[in-house]
Amino acid sequence: MSEGVVHLNGELVPAEEAAVSVHDRGLRYGDGAFETLRAYGGRVFAWEAHAARLERTCETLGFADAVPSAATLQDRVLATLEANDLADAYVRVTITRGEQAGKLTPAPDPAPTVIVVARSLPRGGLAGDPVWDEPAVLQTVRTRRIPDAAIPADAKTLNYLNGILARLELQRAATDEFAADEAVMRDGEDTVLEGATSNLFVVDGGRLLTPSAELDLLPGITREIVLELAREEDFPVETGRFGLDTLRDADEAFLTNTTWEVRPVGVVDGIDLERGPITSLLRRRYAERVEAACYED
Amino acid sequence: MSEGVVHLNGELVPAEEAAVSVHDRGLRYGDGAFETLRAYGGRVFAWEAHAARLERTCETLGFADAVPSAATLQDRVLATLEANDLADAYVRVTITRGEQAGKLTPAPDPAPTVIVVARSLPRGGLAGDPVWDEPAVLQTVRTRRIPDAAIPADAKTLNYLNGILARLELQRAATDEFAADEAVMRDGEDTVLEGATSNLFVVDGGRLLTPSAELDLLPGITREIVLELAREEDFPVETGRFGLDTLRDADEAFLTNTTWEVRPVGVVDGIDLERGPITSLLRRRYAERVEAACYED
Repeated sequence: MSEGVVHLNGELVPAEEAAVSVHDRGLRYGDGAFETLRAYGGRVFAWEAHAARLERTCETLGFADAVPSAATLQDRVLATLEANDLADAYVRVTITRGEQAGKLTPAPDPAPTVIVVARSLPRGGLAGDPVWDEPAVLQTVRTRRIPDAAIPADAKTLNYLNGILARLELQRAATDEFAADEAVMRDGEDTVLEGATSNLFVVDGGRLLTPSAELDLLPGITREIVLELAREEDFPVETGRFGLDTLRDADEAFLTNTTWEVRPVGVVDGIDLERGPITSLLRRRYAERVEAACYED
Repeated sequence: MSEGVVHLNGELVPAEEAAVSVHDRGLRYGDGAFETLRAYGGRVFAWEAHAARLERTCETLGFADAVPSAATLQDRVLATLEANDLADAYVRVTITRGEQAGKLTPAPDPAPTVIVVARSLPRGGLAGDPVWDEPAVLQTVRTRRIPDAAIPADAKTLNYLNGILARLELQRAATDEFAADEAVMRDGEDTVLEGATSNLFVVDGGRLLTPSAELDLLPGITREIVLELAREEDFPVETGRFGLDTLRDADEAFLTNTTWEVRPVGVVDGIDLERGPITSLLRRRYAERVEAACYED
């Protein structure tokens, strides 16, 4: 965890020295943005989409003008990979509003704190093992997703307690025989939205269905790519609103995020789901997309 | 800001060296709790109530068992005041889940990060100047308070973007002639709840009215003391549910929090409010309560 080298405010520093002031607003209030990325073969997958979302989040927080350019950030990510001698890696870019005096209202002229950390994460891909060991075990939690009216749902911020509380519910409900590893989060009207760190897809009656980005969820970059891949396959795609019954009765279901890529769902609220052909097809297509983006010139 | 001495994980360190790892979950996710305190004459006001809430928040986050005892925390607060040669001070105690590997689900056996910072804040009190310069200028914002179902409203956590977004709305709406300094936050049904960092009281038709703690708000410790003081004065008190009209039509209104104590409201959404006798009375009673608690044996 404290091995290797971290890129902190423009400099590479040993991980054990990579620290931020106790007065940093990232620590005081979670006042910042982040992105989780994967590098495959030394290249960052879907960088443009992640950089665009990072900028949008910083705009929502009102400090985008003070943040280094996407090109500078990309240079820092690549420098971090190189300094740690990593080709296949998990990368996290974190940008806080920086150190300011102790008032909640942000002061003008912020000096953001910019952190890039990376650690080894083997690719998996078509031939290797995926990051996840088993299909996901889902459980519906009482914790509801924060509504868009309180914090814009498409901002990826350092305020992540909503998802942590959902995961703590799973921990508290776990037994020796049964432990869920992803939470199903709903809005106040019981509409299914997403997992704590993943988007959710079901295959239902010959179509691929996922909660609409109009709902109060973070529409992930992997989700967007999977929707594209399904359309390329001429598989019927629908984004909309559905409840727990649709998920529990699904022919197949899977989760997407940058780290897991496409991860089949094995169990929903104790109900076994079949591992089906559409999930397998989309996993393969996603691996081919990575192959094309990161290994071909 | 980086002057003086900070109490970090049991040791007093120079502020410029007081830093936490980039892998700390407080920074990665806002995964932690805090309390804002005031010291008067070298004593911490309402310590028991703050310590109890801090413990409750850590219980909500599932790491209370790993946190130092309230007595130990109080010792650290007093040591921080002494090391900085402070008698009248703002104090913040921050406790994060600590450094863990990069997964959202908390790992077992946390080693929390415990931070105490203090800086000079003159008392004000009966004779001196209050912390605030002028009566508060309130403006209703679009940003809605996070519902209790998403994050328990009575937990005081490091996830404070909801309030920051409310304050950013005020900044964006400010002109040379007009700038509000506290936001009026509502729930999804337009019920008035609280400010970004304060509780809200109105005097309306001969009674003191404040949003009920059953609603999705953080019922502050100063709020509780003010309710006690009003009851001691035999002034009719009501906690309930009301909308913007009640606030705008109030005979008087004031805000409470640990730092501001009791702060009159001068303007609500551009409407001037009278500064009235009940607010003045409660300010005086609060100052006397501080006097009794911190200056008498």
